[in-house]
Amino acid sequence: MTRSPVITLLSDFGWQDNYVGIMKGAIAAINPHLQIIDLTHGIAPQNIAAARFSLLTAYPVFPQGTVHVAVVDPGVGSDRRAVAVQVAGGYLVGPDNGLFGGVLTLDPPLAAVELTNPRYWRTPNPSATFHGRDIFAPVGAHLASGIALDALGPAIAPSSLVFLPVCAYEATATGFKGYIQYCDRFGNLITNIPATAVAGKTG
Amino acid sequence: MTRSPVITLLSDFGWQDNYVGIMKGAIAAINPHLQIIDLTHGIAPQNIAAARFSLLTAYPVFPQGTVHVAVVDPGVGSDRRAVAVQVAGGYLVGPDNGLFGGVLTLDPPLAAVELTNPRYWRTPNPSATFHGRDIFAPVGAHLASGIALDALGPAIAPSSLVFLPVCAYEATATGFKGYIQYCDRFGNLITNIPATAVAGKTG
Amino acid sequence: MTRSPVITLLSDFGWQDNYVGIMKGAIAAINPHLQIIDLTHGIAPQNIAAARFSLLTAYPVFPQGTVHVAVVDPGVGSDRRAVAVQVAGGYLVGPDNGLFGGVLTLDPPLAAVELTNPRYWRTPNPSATFHGRDIFAPVGAHLASGIALDALGPAIAPSSLVFLPVCAYEATATGFKGYIQYCDRFGNLITNIPATAVAGKTG
Repeated sequence: MTRSPVITLLSDFGWQDNYVGIMKGAIAAINPHLQIIDLTHGIAPQNIAAARFSLLTAYPVFPQGTVHVAVVDPGVGSDRRAVAVQVAGGYLVGPDNGLFGGVLTLDPPLAAVELTNPRYWRTPNPSATFHGRDIFAPVGAHLASGIALDALGPAIAPSSLVFLPVCAYEATATGFKGYIQYCDRFGNLITNIPATAVAGKTG
Repeated sequence: MTRSPVITLLSDFGWQDNYVGIMKGAIAAINPHLQIIDLTHGIAPQNIAAARFSLLTAYPVFPQGTVHVAVVDPGVGSDRRAVAVQVAGGYLVGPDNGLFGGVLTLDPPLAAVELTNPRYWRTPNPSATFHGRDIFAPVGAHLASGIALDALGPAIAPSSLVFLPVCAYEATATGFKGYIQYCDRFGNLITNIPATAVAGKTG
Repeated sequence: MTRSPVITLLSDFGWQDNYVGIMKGAIAAINPHLQIIDLTHGIAPQNIAAARFSLLTAYPVFPQGTVHVAVVDPGVGSDRRAVAVQVAGGYLVGPDNGLFGGVLTLDPPLAAVELTNPRYWRTPNPSATFHGRDIFAPVGAHLASGIALDALGPAIAPSSLVFLPVCAYEATATGFKGYIQYCDRFGNLITNIPATAVAGKTG
């Protein structure tokens, strides 16, 4: 797949500390010429569902071949898998905990690997708590620089990826029943009922 | 005019959500090699006056040919115009609601167009609520990449642009009467009385 | 020393105002092709100790030749020195108030200069309150673009730099006595007792 020089970062690290800056340092140490774009780091700590929604709504806007690194990772240090997934729009890198489930429902996984090859990590002895710095950001930088997906570790079945299914909306006698999946800074409450479903039905 | 590879973003989108990241994705989809710089996204929601002041104080520092995209846009979806304006220092892209008034008072508009040519939008069917993603960021990316101003839409009279005039300060018998136009994170209150007016008069 | 195209920014300017954006404009005006990376701007106002710790933990991750510009500067406008320091990993640019003390303990200063040559400032008449814009960011951009350290001003003795020594931890009969040097957004309290000291001793 064609690579873009664009690598995005999504996390729950916030803006107060230097964790995001450190991930960018790990990227720059591999390739200082990438275009690093923050999707957001304002995800509430460990809120995988919000991260899933945030990545889903940003993904379609980015150029073909973009590498998306997402680190909302309450299971860091456990046996959850670290993965890279190829999709039509580019690559997804992060923990296999469902945060990619939105994008993977839109664009099914074409190939996936488990990130077990330490050659593409920052260090063969990664921290137990900061895989963003030691595994995900470096792997993302290597992918964005042209490394082949299958160099990163053994292939895994795309169907084995965690999808974190969300509840469906449903039509009722008087309208629709759905749920709120995101609240933004302006106070907008965003439901899972698509605009196309309610076209011409308001009022 | 010489173009710089620099494109700035100013908004009231905050840092919590992915809206800024999405605007950058729309830029990268057109030209992934631009230098994208955030002026700030911490403008209070819909505070055009604060955005006006923020752009005014940042503008003189940037290199010649910089494209400034500013999106504080309470009138999105109404009939307010979307514009691009050429000034001595570069280009301004955003809603014609006065947020460019500070820069335009410093550097009068040399030319202006209304952004009606969908060829330079992200989609011919832009969202009614997110012109930052669908119109302003893409147009800014095209401008920074060398597209001519007049390709973006029909020329409009520079004198028709909204300036959002601010109150003047005045000398009084005992000093000056002005108003506070910005409060920063350090608690500094910044008035509209220029330092040159009070030179040697403190105490 | 080999230069990297990477320049980092660390400050207590926060994200609400345009001060960080303005520093980036001052950099872009000198070299729009640098990779500008924010370490963080969320340092509590004037908290030199937190900035010292933040720079120390980020520094080792960055590529050789990176220029780190740090502006937590309660003494701006006083007679504190403005300095640039060469270390094994790159360059440090900012006020000589101890915020570089952590890095300098890790990697001793190889050379240092006082930033008195206005040729590498943004203006020969810098603001009394915003050296980040007028001195530190421009000097950092020039360094990252290949200017020699000794062009920036007269050499100063590395031993004269302010180190801001931190209290040591100590072993006690029952464990260790240290102090908390940083609190992050997740509520982690980070002590000055290194992990290596307590290896195998928990429980």
